Amino acid sequence: MTACGVGSKVWMDGHICDVGQAHIDMSDRGFTLGDGLFETMLWTGKHIRYFDDHMARLARAASELAIALPWSAHELRDGLNTLAQDAGGQTAAIRLTLTRGTGPRGLAFPPQTVPHMLATLAPYAPSSTPLRLKTVTIARNCGAPSARFKTLSYVDNVMALNQARSLGADDAIMLGTNANVACSSGANIVIVLNGRALTPNVEDGALPGIVRGRLIAAGLVDAACITTHMLAACQAAVLTNALVGIRPVAAINARFLDSSLAVATELNNALALS
Amino acid sequence: MTACGVGSKVWMDGHICDVGQAHIDMSDRGFTLGDGLFETMLWTGKHIRYFDDHMARLARAASELAIALPWSAHELRDGLNTLAQDAGGQTAAIRLTLTRGTGPRGLAFPPQTVPHMLATLAPYAPSSTPLRLKTVTIARNCGAPSARFKTLSYVDNVMALNQARSLGADDAIMLGTNANVACSSGANIVIVLNGRALTPNVEDGALPGIVRGRLIAAGLVDAACITTHMLAACQAAVLTNALVGIRPVAAINARFLDSSLAVATELNNALALS
Repeated sequence: MTACGVGSKVWMDGHICDVGQAHIDMSDRGFTLGDGLFETMLWTGKHIRYFDDHMARLARAASELAIALPWSAHELRDGLNTLAQDAGGQTAAIRLTLTRGTGPRGLAFPPQTVPHMLATLAPYAPSSTPLRLKTVTIARNCGAPSARFKTLSYVDNVMALNQARSLGADDAIMLGTNANVACSSGANIVIVLNGRALTPNVEDGALPGIVRGRLIAAGLVDAACITTHMLAACQAAVLTNALVGIRPVAAINARFLDSSLAVATELNNALALS
Repeated sequence: MTACGVGSKVWMDGHICDVGQAHIDMSDRGFTLGDGLFETMLWTGKHIRYFDDHMARLARAASELAIALPWSAHELRDGLNTLAQDAGGQTAAIRLTLTRGTGPRGLAFPPQTVPHMLATLAPYAPSSTPLRLKTVTIARNCGAPSARFKTLSYVDNVMALNQARSLGADDAIMLGTNANVACSSGANIVIVLNGRALTPNVEDGALPGIVRGRLIAAGLVDAACITTHMLAACQAAVLTNALVGIRPVAAINARFLDSSLAVATELNNALALS
């Protein structure tokens, strides 16, 4: 195999191939309808962090969307590990995408579909720079597949991030359609309020994030309904996802949170020990 | 040009090519994030019905999503008309897709993007068979880009249709996240209640449909807030979209609506005269 660096190869339906040879069929429902799922994972330089958690979430979501996973977790681990060799000992982001496959015009599930999977590798170095967040007007659709699962239908999150950036923030705080706090455009949020670390419920529009799940399982964070009043009163906040890990929030709606960095460090250390 | 029938050719970024040669780049944000728009139009056998309406809606939505339309309406008309020649004098469905183009990992707009457009042609014959509808639990995200525009982020509508089918219906009635009636999985709805023809507001999750807009402009239908109580009391209903035209609703939640066929005929005739 010729080494051409991160991003020169992809894993597609069981094979490693050059990125220039890998294309999506224009009738793939992932493209035409956002009808699919993805997972973004951290290659640590040695292994895929939280691989089993990612596979469990993907399998659960695929089952709910009635997409049959064409590869076992074992086969995917082998394929993704091979792909990640191009990163050498560096950290990198692996994105695994699953679609329902190609189909004719229309929304109805085709009678027979062959799901399609591919994975790409991109350079990625986790950052711990604190982020400034602002609440945006675009909400997460509480209870809908697009909010409960990491689907390819991501345009609301794309535009939420763009709205936050246009307001001078680094990222958005999205509320759920029930008006409680949900998440950022691409991460879960944890707030610290009167000594308690809380993260929004899935019912309020939060994605069941990998790091979020680990923090809850370790007893470090509680899932709770977080109102905008609680958000405005919190003493610290962090964002969490599988790539970022735990990242401090510098400010929410221009209100500075001096203790977020300490909370991020504390949660990071506690999670590593759990 | 070798005639190979409907679906053998596509229009892509200004050129007609064989479908086998047309592919989507795997880093196209239409595929990775549902970050794009589409229009579905009826080829009558002679021309594209409501072409100007489709172009106006696409331009408005693209502007709101900050995607620069790479082709003028005039250029698109020429391209789509050429594509549609494969349908001969038969009716067909033209789907025009616009994406933000390729980009690196992440949600943020890339600094420089080249939007990507393509169009496909599929066999289509409008049907006037009455449809049975059932209300589903998946809601339209009122006010969000995914509900206001015809975006590629369509998984909630896909799953709404699937839920309706699993309940024995032909299509779904989706409520908005504010609990008012919004639309079906792929069409607008018009109900007749006490002699008035009403269709849900865009603010309640209805897409600003082409036929819906024409019916309102002709004074045949009023946009209004439609509660589930009003839905349960209506005397007739029809679905409308640019492909279907106006199609009668046979039943809503197993309550039969005997006068829907007459309403569909009346609205069709009135719209043709308007």
